[in-house]
Amino acid sequence: MILNTSTSRINATGGHLASNLGMVETTIALHYMFMVGHTSTSVSLATGLAKARDLKGEVGNVVAIIGDGSLSGGEAFEGLNNAAILDSNMVLFNANEMSITPNFGGMYQNFELLRQTKGTAQCNFFKSFSFGYFYVEDGNDVGQVLTVLKKVKDVDHPVVIHVHTVKEKGLAWCEADKGSSHYGMPAGLDLSAFEGVENHEAITADLLLQKMKEDPSVMAISPATPMLTGSMPDIREKAGKQFIDVGIAEEHAVGFAAGLAKNGAKPVLMAVSSFMQRTYDQLMQDMALDKTPVTILLFLANLSPGDATHCGIFDIPMMSSIPDLLCLAPATKEEYLAMFEWSMEQTDGPVVIRVPSAVVSNPEASATTAEDFCKYQITEKGNKVAVLGLGNFLGLAGQVQELLLKKKGIQATVIDPHVYSDVDRDMLENLKTDHSVVVTLEDGSLAGGFREKIAAFYGNSGMKVLDFGGQKAFTDRVPMEVQYQHCHLTPELIVADIEECMRG
Amino acid sequence: MILNTSTSRINATGGHLASNLGMVETTIALHYMFMVGHTSTSVSLATGLAKARDLKGEVGNVVAIIGDGSLSGGEAFEGLNNAAILDSNMVLFNANEMSITPNFGGMYQNFELLRQTKGTAQCNFFKSFSFGYFYVEDGNDVGQVLTVLKKVKDVDHPVVIHVHTVKEKGLAWCEADKGSSHYGMPAGLDLSAFEGVENHEAITADLLLQKMKEDPSVMAISPATPMLTGSMPDIREKAGKQFIDVGIAEEHAVGFAAGLAKNGAKPVLMAVSSFMQRTYDQLMQDMALDKTPVTILLFLANLSPGDATHCGIFDIPMMSSIPDLLCLAPATKEEYLAMFEWSMEQTDGPVVIRVPSAVVSNPEASATTAEDFCKYQITEKGNKVAVLGLGNFLGLAGQVQELLLKKKGIQATVIDPHVYSDVDRDMLENLKTDHSVVVTLEDGSLAGGFREKIAAFYGNSGMKVLDFGGQKAFTDRVPMEVQYQHCHLTPELIVADIEECMRG
Repeated sequence: MILNTSTSRINATGGHLASNLGMVETTIALHYMFMVGHTSTSVSLATGLAKARDLKGEVGNVVAIIGDGSLSGGEAFEGLNNAAILDSNMVLFNANEMSITPNFGGMYQNFELLRQTKGTAQCNFFKSFSFGYFYVEDGNDVGQVLTVLKKVKDVDHPVVIHVHTVKEKGLAWCEADKGSSHYGMPAGLDLSAFEGVENHEAITADLLLQKMKEDPSVMAISPATPMLTGSMPDIREKAGKQFIDVGIAEEHAVGFAAGLAKNGAKPVLMAVSSFMQRTYDQLMQDMALDKTPVTILLFLANLSPGDATHCGIFDIPMMSSIPDLLCLAPATKEEYLAMFEWSMEQTDGPVVIRVPSAVVSNPEASATTAEDFCKYQITEKGNKVAVLGLGNFLGLAGQVQELLLKKKGIQATVIDPHVYSDVDRDMLENLKTDHSVVVTLEDGSLAGGFREKIAAFYGNSGMKVLDFGGQKAFTDRVPMEVQYQHCHLTPELIVADIEECMRG
Repeated sequence: MILNTSTSRINATGGHLASNLGMVETTIALHYMFMVGHTSTSVSLATGLAKARDLKGEVGNVVAIIGDGSLSGGEAFEGLNNAAILDSNMVLFNANEMSITPNFGGMYQNFELLRQTKGTAQCNFFKSFSFGYFYVEDGNDVGQVLTVLKKVKDVDHPVVIHVHTVKEKGLAWCEADKGSSHYGMPAGLDLSAFEGVENHEAITADLLLQKMKEDPSVMAISPATPMLTGSMPDIREKAGKQFIDVGIAEEHAVGFAAGLAKNGAKPVLMAVSSFMQRTYDQLMQDMALDKTPVTILLFLANLSPGDATHCGIFDIPMMSSIPDLLCLAPATKEEYLAMFEWSMEQTDGPVVIRVPSAVVSNPEASATTAEDFCKYQITEKGNKVAVLGLGNFLGLAGQVQELLLKKKGIQATVIDPHVYSDVDRDMLENLKTDHSVVVTLEDGSLAGGFREKIAAFYGNSGMKVLDFGGQKAFTDRVPMEVQYQHCHLTPELIVADIEECMRG
């Protein structure tokens, strides 16, 4: 069986892999079952597959593939350490590619040494975990790969086949210009529609660079996703030593940020919602427990039409119930910038900011001081119905208000909550006097979501709470229109539900 | 500055450390600030401290201490990989002890080799990360340690001082009997009160061994906490190859279990509530996303008088909102055993079982088939008030019912919910007909807790929901009586709150 957590690795080794599969006995053809999940997982999964084979008294070769990028993740390391002592057959196929920079971690210098010495250097990362070790000088040569695969077939202990490949092999323009093919947007995409469109990635980069100039202790950290969070190559170059990409090492990113803050620096961790799932314990134990002032900017935190492994809807359930972690959801550019600047200067504790998906500017109505944005804010005063539009969904709240006025003559209250780690008890209490329905809108999973804190607050009162947000599900490439319809995330469907609730 | 995430390390090196501190310039004396948190964090934190020093243009030595046990955790590996490329001073002090068995991972075989060769072996775990390397043969000799510390003082790149220590040094009985001092209960504890008392740790071990005999594909996994989950040395010996302690490697434990299940084995992961926090992403991506049938037994999942780093109240918020992860909370021994047996045989997906704190037996009233325990169960039928006592707190629900009857003449309904990852919509809907107040009791944090799912369900109805559970806080050695009083977790306080709610 073949495991691969990164499809790019198969691309890297091209057709060579498939042609060799025939010679590897496979107990179960599981390679298609694990193209799922986050990176760095294949070693642990393969160790489990191999152990199950042994328990059942079966035979056969278990082959796991892991790229060198994925190797930096904690689960991969833990897996290596445990895989190495498996008392039976297991082959780790490491497509170890020439990388553009050695600066994602110390082990890559050892990989470089191994390539230079054709695998003969005594100091060997894989051997230091006690793996058997085989080196393939030209991973793009079928014959060389096949020779080693024949050697390791039916091996009775864990071995690593360390294959030197050339990432761009066969793509002439890439081979000629390795730099741009390592960093860059996917080829063939028509991005002209986005040109000139204001976006929070660029806004973030601008503010960061400005702050870095003013204060040498400002430090930006990205766990392997700089392009997704606005840190393009030119930005990183300007930031110099005040920027680091720690590679696929989210846990380290949080611990590192905590250390920086502990010693008086101003760390800004820029991360993608779904990958921060790897840091639940670090957020809690390395950061919140000690009230360490780190700023975390959370990108791609929203319902999306993407695949099931990158859902951006679980960060609210994950983070909002951690004690002493302030979670903020700005609705406008002005609020985002104000929260970001304030967070970098405050020293009370860690702050998570859900970066809005689209740029909405509202200089007059936005809350731009901590005194204002650390509590709920009424943006439209009304009665009977109050609509709380968290972050991205404040605009939707406004649309609901307009439709409710038009259809029912109800002048609803619109609220920008700003904070989702706690409720604004005073505001919610006051709503009881002239409101009977509170509506919550959130761009995230309802299960464990913001709505639950509101519903729990009103639990022992007569206030009715209607909630709208994402399903408790791993949505896999479901178009936004379908999700919005299904979850009633349109003004029409929401107003219909409000009408029904008020009748009931 | 000195970091140490494990106080045992300081004990291991005894007074030697302190006597050497004088020669290490410290920019900030932070060693007391990091005795917090889970293990494996010191390298990342120290890297942050060192980087902050550099950003601020300060000088001084940053010294981090990490024991070899902690080195197996993912965050430690990620930290090593990143610390090694820090372009300035940093000293990792690895108190590398002779360990009783080499079977917690492959790297420990390299440590053994390094000890045998007095640090001269070419294949060197630390060097493979590109650290400078110094070996101290006798870490219990102040002079030897001091000599190396003098050498590395003001070093301009990251180095590891690999110190060979003897764990039991100075404790004659330990030195004479290494085995029992490595595995054993803390000395000096009077455990006589527990002798003969039935406990779920032993019950778990008994069932596991029985199942292992019947089915060779049953596999028990512990991430470094076998003693806390009933896998005592004699149990592990009986289990043989069907038990593995993967060391401090919780992420791997989940990935490994997923791999086992994928290949048809029956993995049982026995873990402690607070340490499972490290596996949020793996639970979701390696397990739930693919509906992989793994059984997770969660121990020490309750309010406790322990320290802030081991709170067992956050697993409900963390796990109950993950899609396709069935979370069960048995209230009795019979329910626990039935759920455990059922989970091992089912193939629908992963199941988490919150192992009850105390053993309560109720053969008649317990739900022992999946058809029954996968939904809520009325254990006392009444009206007006329904009390949902989740898991450990079903007994408290019964006490509330009795007191309510005695004081107010109200015959309340008592419900054993069993499931906390979802609500039993039919049951909750039915309660509307003759109940006006629903009370939830849970042995966990209210924020993100079971109560929120109930409150959200009743949000758009007239049902009042009163909730009782732990605070959103890291409680640090707060006596149970104080916590119970503060959280109103006594029959008297709960009944008083119900009375007030019914008046209001």
